[in-house]
Amino acid sequence: MSLLVQEKVIQAVGILNELDLDVWLTFVRETSATPDPVLPLIYGDNTLTWHSALLISRTGERIAIVGRMEEAAARETGAYSQVLVYDQSIRPLLVETLTRLDGQSVAINTSLSNVLADGLTHGMYRSLQAMIEGTPFAGRLVSAESVISALRGRKTPAEIALIRAAIATTEEIYADVFASHPVGQTERQIAVRMHNQMKARGVLPAWSADGCPIVNAGADSAIGHSNPTDRKLEPGQILHLDFGVMQAGYCADIQRVAYCRKPNEVDAPEAVKRAFRTVTEGIAAAARVMRIGTPGVEVDAAARKVITDAGYPEYPYATGHQMGRIAHDGGALLGPAWDRYGSSPHETLEVGQVYTLEPGLMVEGYGYMGIEEDVLLQESGVTFLSKPQTELILM
Amino acid sequence: MSLLVQEKVIQAVGILNELDLDVWLTFVRETSATPDPVLPLIYGDNTLTWHSALLISRTGERIAIVGRMEEAAARETGAYSQVLVYDQSIRPLLVETLTRLDGQSVAINTSLSNVLADGLTHGMYRSLQAMIEGTPFAGRLVSAESVISALRGRKTPAEIALIRAAIATTEEIYADVFASHPVGQTERQIAVRMHNQMKARGVLPAWSADGCPIVNAGADSAIGHSNPTDRKLEPGQILHLDFGVMQAGYCADIQRVAYCRKPNEVDAPEAVKRAFRTVTEGIAAAARVMRIGTPGVEVDAAARKVITDAGYPEYPYATGHQMGRIAHDGGALLGPAWDRYGSSPHETLEVGQVYTLEPGLMVEGYGYMGIEEDVLLQESGVTFLSKPQTELILM
Repeated sequence: MSLLVQEKVIQAVGILNELDLDVWLTFVRETSATPDPVLPLIYGDNTLTWHSALLISRTGERIAIVGRMEEAAARETGAYSQVLVYDQSIRPLLVETLTRLDGQSVAINTSLSNVLADGLTHGMYRSLQAMIEGTPFAGRLVSAESVISALRGRKTPAEIALIRAAIATTEEIYADVFASHPVGQTERQIAVRMHNQMKARGVLPAWSADGCPIVNAGADSAIGHSNPTDRKLEPGQILHLDFGVMQAGYCADIQRVAYCRKPNEVDAPEAVKRAFRTVTEGIAAAARVMRIGTPGVEVDAAARKVITDAGYPEYPYATGHQMGRIAHDGGALLGPAWDRYGSSPHETLEVGQVYTLEPGLMVEGYGYMGIEEDVLLQESGVTFLSKPQTELILM
Repeated sequence: MSLLVQEKVIQAVGILNELDLDVWLTFVRETSATPDPVLPLIYGDNTLTWHSALLISRTGERIAIVGRMEEAAARETGAYSQVLVYDQSIRPLLVETLTRLDGQSVAINTSLSNVLADGLTHGMYRSLQAMIEGTPFAGRLVSAESVISALRGRKTPAEIALIRAAIATTEEIYADVFASHPVGQTERQIAVRMHNQMKARGVLPAWSADGCPIVNAGADSAIGHSNPTDRKLEPGQILHLDFGVMQAGYCADIQRVAYCRKPNEVDAPEAVKRAFRTVTEGIAAAARVMRIGTPGVEVDAAARKVITDAGYPEYPYATGHQMGRIAHDGGALLGPAWDRYGSSPHETLEVGQVYTLEPGLMVEGYGYMGIEEDVLLQESGVTFLSKPQTELILM
């Protein structure tokens, strides 16, 4: 955990330089009640109780100002070049530190559109304003949105290792559920098996437990963010699963499909096989165009075109999203230029980002064909972190 | 859970009337990333994803405005008389609802001093301002601090039942640890046993796991918020434990003491017995003066006087704090009028509040004598929720 935080804090220094911002200030208190979503990245799992300030400067200074009782925990992160401690009020040390760093811009964790960059409460914002009133810094506050977005997006080696581990566990649980030949079971029973597997491995679902996994048995199952039902998986149906675990704070998000053969059926029907080929080709097309600097909308278009060229209706969602500490990790999106996605599909891809690729389509009479892989963008192009599903599982 | 939320939301209506506030607005989004600490009380365990508004009016209206996909969850709380749903933007429904309620005051979750009433992020505050710009409500925003403080403090029957259950589990774990005769074990071994007991019962520690329980073996053990060490519990020492579980979202917080007899010792030394009597008398004195309307500082003084009258130095902390969803639940404090406690010792006691009573003192050469009971304030006076320790445990 400590290595991870050290890597991220060092990375933040580089991002400040790149974005031409002088100082990034994370200002929090009693984070057990009002956590700032950036803290796991730049401070770790410990909570901060009294008013606390984490300051990172473009010159490479990393300063934690914390209550005396949390001095040891702040030092143990190994991420801060200086740990300053107070007993009564954080104000003198905070103003002194801001004055010494003399940043022309002080970025704070507030954002209208990105909840992951909006950790500063309004009360804490007012406290900060009161503390710096009369100093030059009162007029130098800007949003840290771009810093946090880059910091969350660009995974460090330690983060990639944790994501790989979450993916490996997710794939193990997938292997278990397909090996159990769940034909005749209900969607709910399949979900319970996967929940038990998570418990046995001491990991959590990557999103709300009720809908993780999503289990779709056949064509009449509701697609989207709906919960497993008492619908039974029958021969002649596609089994579609959308699932991932959160392990050591990092997530996986993978979709897999299987076909339940009818008695005497040797292979899946051609309609199902063609759908499978189309979706995997969509994923491959997206992966081929992913390059540093490409806008997400172009990646989306590449996958979407494969689906519509094959005569299927286009899927009503984005081809892929970033993944990390949460399954939908925000920032640049591999999505179409639809209003509801705002500017996120126009953001360009950066090195170290991890994306899902998840086109899908409905196979009338059989069920939903959706496959989702997790990929890492590097200088050299895309690396698949999940072991791609290249063949339809037959049960 | 649902009954609990229903009780609290109804209770909030009464509190608004009492405080002469018209409308209370909780305004949140993606609460999995930025939770508002009041949500467990007025909405329950589910998260809210898109911009969501929970409005409670002094006229008894309880309106939830949520994204379409969360309509069912909002209805299932059973706490809202109206659930309004949107697809694109919350703004029209929010402004329409505020206009219909026409409150002269609209209380929002922001506070300089009370983190539990400071759930509104600065970004969400700016969003709200933008949404109500040009309406009369832009000038009617006030802090909901007093509403939230009263709502958290005054426990409903369902909440008291849950606190009783957390206390019962805490007492079971205490019974187990004392039955294990831990003489010769280290503080850390004793803590591990209690952690295993929590795991076996599926409950969590009521505060940070590292320091829950606090275990003090003998006079040289560091008192306060320090973690269990490899110090061994020896004959001739006091064993002091400070511990509580969180169960179904509610906490207990109890201290217990035992004395480890030396070979041939039949009873504890008189110095230890006198200290035990003094601390239990301090608790009794505090309980006797607890009445609705009494300022906390008077309760503190009653207990503190027993300790200092007996010739011991006064303890450097408050006699008691409120307890509920978290072990230190904020609001009125049974504390001395010291600067660092601000106005909290001068707040008066209200019906339905749950307090700890925890005077303590050091017995030179033997260890720390601290006992902590949990009490409920009712119309008729104080009820002990914990089974008070009336005899020193001898090991």
